[in-house]
Amino acid sequence: MTAEQPTARAAQVPQSPVAIGLVPSILSADFSRLGEQVREAEEAGVQRIQIDVMDGHFVPNITMGPLIVEAVRRSTSLPLEAHLMITNPEHYIEAFARAGADVIIVHQETCPHLHRIVQQIKEAGKQAGVALNPSSPVWLLEDILSLLDLVLIMTVNPGFGGQEFIPETLPKIARLRQQLTERQLHCDLEVDGGINEHTAPLVVRAGANLLVAGSAVYNGRESVAAAVERLRRALAFT
Amino acid sequence: MTAEQPTARAAQVPQSPVAIGLVPSILSADFSRLGEQVREAEEAGVQRIQIDVMDGHFVPNITMGPLIVEAVRRSTSLPLEAHLMITNPEHYIEAFARAGADVIIVHQETCPHLHRIVQQIKEAGKQAGVALNPSSPVWLLEDILSLLDLVLIMTVNPGFGGQEFIPETLPKIARLRQQLTERQLHCDLEVDGGINEHTAPLVVRAGANLLVAGSAVYNGRESVAAAVERLRRALAFT
Amino acid sequence: MTAEQPTARAAQVPQSPVAIGLVPSILSADFSRLGEQVREAEEAGVQRIQIDVMDGHFVPNITMGPLIVEAVRRSTSLPLEAHLMITNPEHYIEAFARAGADVIIVHQETCPHLHRIVQQIKEAGKQAGVALNPSSPVWLLEDILSLLDLVLIMTVNPGFGGQEFIPETLPKIARLRQQLTERQLHCDLEVDGGINEHTAPLVVRAGANLLVAGSAVYNGRESVAAAVERLRRALAFT
Amino acid sequence: MTAEQPTARAAQVPQSPVAIGLVPSILSADFSRLGEQVREAEEAGVQRIQIDVMDGHFVPNITMGPLIVEAVRRSTSLPLEAHLMITNPEHYIEAFARAGADVIIVHQETCPHLHRIVQQIKEAGKQAGVALNPSSPVWLLEDILSLLDLVLIMTVNPGFGGQEFIPETLPKIARLRQQLTERQLHCDLEVDGGINEHTAPLVVRAGANLLVAGSAVYNGRESVAAAVERLRRALAFT
Amino acid sequence: MTAEQPTARAAQVPQSPVAIGLVPSILSADFSRLGEQVREAEEAGVQRIQIDVMDGHFVPNITMGPLIVEAVRRSTSLPLEAHLMITNPEHYIEAFARAGADVIIVHQETCPHLHRIVQQIKEAGKQAGVALNPSSPVWLLEDILSLLDLVLIMTVNPGFGGQEFIPETLPKIARLRQQLTERQLHCDLEVDGGINEHTAPLVVRAGANLLVAGSAVYNGRESVAAAVERLRRALAFT
Amino acid sequence: MTAEQPTARAAQVPQSPVAIGLVPSILSADFSRLGEQVREAEEAGVQRIQIDVMDGHFVPNITMGPLIVEAVRRSTSLPLEAHLMITNPEHYIEAFARAGADVIIVHQETCPHLHRIVQQIKEAGKQAGVALNPSSPVWLLEDILSLLDLVLIMTVNPGFGGQEFIPETLPKIARLRQQLTERQLHCDLEVDGGINEHTAPLVVRAGANLLVAGSAVYNGRESVAAAVERLRRALAFT
Repeated sequence: MTAEQPTARAAQVPQSPVAIGLVPSILSADFSRLGEQVREAEEAGVQRIQIDVMDGHFVPNITMGPLIVEAVRRSTSLPLEAHLMITNPEHYIEAFARAGADVIIVHQETCPHLHRIVQQIKEAGKQAGVALNPSSPVWLLEDILSLLDLVLIMTVNPGFGGQEFIPETLPKIARLRQQLTERQLHCDLEVDGGINEHTAPLVVRAGANLLVAGSAVYNGRESVAAAVERLRRALAFT
Repeated sequence: MTAEQPTARAAQVPQSPVAIGLVPSILSADFSRLGEQVREAEEAGVQRIQIDVMDGHFVPNITMGPLIVEAVRRSTSLPLEAHLMITNPEHYIEAFARAGADVIIVHQETCPHLHRIVQQIKEAGKQAGVALNPSSPVWLLEDILSLLDLVLIMTVNPGFGGQEFIPETLPKIARLRQQLTERQLHCDLEVDGGINEHTAPLVVRAGANLLVAGSAVYNGRESVAAAVERLRRALAFT
Repeated sequence: MTAEQPTARAAQVPQSPVAIGLVPSILSADFSRLGEQVREAEEAGVQRIQIDVMDGHFVPNITMGPLIVEAVRRSTSLPLEAHLMITNPEHYIEAFARAGADVIIVHQETCPHLHRIVQQIKEAGKQAGVALNPSSPVWLLEDILSLLDLVLIMTVNPGFGGQEFIPETLPKIARLRQQLTERQLHCDLEVDGGINEHTAPLVVRAGANLLVAGSAVYNGRESVAAAVERLRRALAFT
Repeated sequence: MTAEQPTARAAQVPQSPVAIGLVPSILSADFSRLGEQVREAEEAGVQRIQIDVMDGHFVPNITMGPLIVEAVRRSTSLPLEAHLMITNPEHYIEAFARAGADVIIVHQETCPHLHRIVQQIKEAGKQAGVALNPSSPVWLLEDILSLLDLVLIMTVNPGFGGQEFIPETLPKIARLRQQLTERQLHCDLEVDGGINEHTAPLVVRAGANLLVAGSAVYNGRESVAAAVERLRRALAFT
Repeated sequence: MTAEQPTARAAQVPQSPVAIGLVPSILSADFSRLGEQVREAEEAGVQRIQIDVMDGHFVPNITMGPLIVEAVRRSTSLPLEAHLMITNPEHYIEAFARAGADVIIVHQETCPHLHRIVQQIKEAGKQAGVALNPSSPVWLLEDILSLLDLVLIMTVNPGFGGQEFIPETLPKIARLRQQLTERQLHCDLEVDGGINEHTAPLVVRAGANLLVAGSAVYNGRESVAAAVERLRRALAFT
Repeated sequence: MTAEQPTARAAQVPQSPVAIGLVPSILSADFSRLGEQVREAEEAGVQRIQIDVMDGHFVPNITMGPLIVEAVRRSTSLPLEAHLMITNPEHYIEAFARAGADVIIVHQETCPHLHRIVQQIKEAGKQAGVALNPSSPVWLLEDILSLLDLVLIMTVNPGFGGQEFIPETLPKIARLRQQLTERQLHCDLEVDGGINEHTAPLVVRAGANLLVAGSAVYNGRESVAAAVERLRRALAFT
């Protein structure tokens, strides 16, 4: 799907609307029955599960670590993304790899040695992603982009679930999509923060192909299946 | 032994089993069904639940934060202890209080302003505890002891479940018990690390009255009820 | 260019003289009679007062905090800028807002979560500014620029009063002015460091509209009124 | 006990009244007219002035630095104490010495190399003091005590003016006084925090000889002279 | 010299092949006979010696400091480069200058006040260099480039000797060379990491003029003279 | 007292001469011929070699790391002590063990998890030592002492060679010796800093049995053999 003529090309090429993946974040799930919540998402047909790791240092919240990744791993066969919102992630790559993460995402802002940590993730046999805060320009990734499996554009400031989408991130998503296209790089463009049925079409049109959704999926008002279906419908005509 | 009538009962049963409390730590629980695991402990008659919060900075592991405390809070009516193995705990006291912790325990080693944080915990309406690493002498608490509800003597180095009890901590437990007795302070003396049916009697004889047990309770080999019963029996004749 | 006769020139040029504001920094004032020094500046007709907050961590000097902002607030009705040369400014936004700052300026170099802190400043009801050190390129602000009320280009390295203007910053000022114009953003472009009657015309021509002046205003050799008048005259024909 | 008639009583008791000194802290002064406020204290007959330096890192407040010390230095001939509530004070000793501090006080909690910094203060030609937070035991100073000119026992947690005295610090003051007496050390024993006409007699009886008073001296309700007189009267019969 | 037609132009322009300098890094030398190892390199006709300073904080290795620079200084009259892979390098510039370094190189990633530290190096009478990690884009140096004597493009992640060259750094070298040419700046373009007879021609064609070589020069398999000769031959036809 | 004739004197005095060991620190050696300098010490009959590792963070100097330990290891068969004056030593224990250190010494002041790091050293198959700064009281080691192979009492502030002995450390040495004797612990009591022919007898009488000597051994005025002999003679009649 391209921003220029999405409908036509969607029918023709593999990077079609079906390539758009939903990635529920368990940050908003019910932690007293996490396995169940994850299985509900898997049954609803999502593509991956994201685990939001916060250390209380990079972001002002402490959430979860490798033990939770292990518990999710035992509950599903979906690919797992560990989104490390932590300082000094180099000390924890192996622990998250062993715990069962398939994609490990670190933040550009906290990695002066970003190339080394990407090497480290790949040596652990995992896909490497880099996340950018809303204020971090995409060209900070210029020299590492060709080595990445995924870039995560934060569409809220990391730290908490349930925040409102920042519309100023849309041009940034588009800029990154353009770079990926120009440089012919195979790299997922994921967004995270404030994704719901209203914002999902916007980020897809801007160029995102993986959408993390937390409180839109685990909201306590409807079943996970219903929530996922609602998001899917919102994406159906983008 | 009860605080109400110490002399009379002290004559009968020196340090009677009923005063001894078992505090399962969920660090070794199955996080895919945490609510269930906590209810199993409650049904087995334990006194409290401990939640091991690690930030990857004070200790080399990241575990869980306020979201998990909330999930445990919804699953049980037992008192909850949040054991904060984190640096700068002053930024998180309110979050853990709001999440439902009843006792908040910080580490002496990471609190240059230990008195302020004890004030902060009490102003949040919670019981205040201070933990000591195996190498930290008890008289570091001399000037704060009279204000504490609980001292937690670590009997392993904090960071991971399943470690082996450090016998050198026994004289330290005894020294603290002696101080509490001499100064007539009502303060729980808790131990954490390597507690099982063999070490539990030792720490109780040394003076501990609350015993945190992780892998001894949640071990995957037997029911929580059976594990708790085994620990209780071990304590029956101390 | 003087503030007294803006109308004539305003009719001629879009970027009207009225837009050029002088902002004395109290860093060079006499702190034994701060209220008086601030009132002297106000009577001399300056536009704002800047308060240089240094924590001894981001910069190698410790200067002043919210108490001084409060004292200046009580002494003048001019808008106050708090220039936070501190690490972890997120912990102090509310304190400076309560103390009476109208504009709160943080440094890009010390804010991995720059978008969040701009939100935080605005939620406190204040104008948000971001400062750039001499070596920090302006496009680091690309994704946040549209949300800012002010960008402060440091024309010396922050830390001390009385330093010499760095001429290499002039093209940077021009680059930022060009971006603001192209993107049609209403955002003050302030400069700080080594501003005197010789450098003031240069920075205005390059595109600055707010000029912080410390030792040029509070220099102990002449009255504040005389110093301000001297700077104004220097700007009269730019 | 008054400063005016020391000789008579000095002849009678070893720990003579002449030793009790009042040390106003300017933390609660009016910073818009600091020189005046300091002169008022000097005229009221106080012994020293204390300047509370906070960096926003060791304590959760940023206050003032060498520039304020200089301004106070120009306003009085009283001895000045710089109480450094900052991390890495070793980087700022020379700056505070040059600014005019006569006594430089660092915190034990933030100085792993406490002996070196005491050397550094003495090499700068100044008196060296060490402060202890309410929770820090006095025997942490065992190996440095004989080299100190002053120990400052915090009777509140450092960070803000106007806090309530912590009575648990009284035995600590007494313990330190006992050590100084036993080891025959000439070292001032200063207290800081919550000192007013009610608590001043308590700390003097416990063994303090220098009393820092902030909001009791600069309270906005009465003249500095009246406030100082009130404190003096409270001490007259201890 | 341009990558397209080096030989022809070399005859015409001063920046000829002879401008290519070899800079052995002692990181791979035998430290039990360092003086000898350095003299061997000097006799082999290298241009400079590089000393790799690592503090175990910016990079995960601790190597050497000013004492080693002094020892090398006493052993050779070649220019010495101190490559500071350390955090807070501002505290050590004077020590390395006194020890005898001629060029002092700091890392962009660890210098929020990069302009100040360049000033500091120049005030110490030394040449100033800035190093970039593999993932750091060259335009981060846009506003400081005109003041630099040297830019060091890391072609491996700093921390250890003997790593493999990262080919993704070649376009970055070329981009920097282009900027230096366009802006007509006299600034050495040095590379460091994985340089051997295979990679040396590549980096020279991309635009580098100083080549740091560690394990290729000090490899224990051949004499330093032989190793240097081998590298020279590889460069002879670039 | 000499190492050559221990038996005779050992029969006479309880604290036998054989126990006193000289440990040259290479901090003052000539690093251009380190192997030679170490061999000179070995030939002079010293007991061990100490390697002073400084990271520029725990102490204000950067010195050397594992590479230098390796070079010394290849040059002598004497036991090697790595004295880690670094923060976060837990990240470097394995590197120093692999490099050939036989005793690894960490600082109490920088190890909140001192027990764990002692475990870590022992698991690496090495002897574990703990160093105390001049201002750190010995009872900070109360709960770890029984597990240590060595305590290093710093008799200067760590950071540089050539400093003057601090006489206030003598009672501390004596206090530690008394504890070791009372608790019947086999643990070396080493001192480091300002040791020469005048101070060596003092520290031995106070209770030290291992004496680190830097500039007294490597002083450039005499041979290492002569310097060691001078120190030995000074100890002969203690």
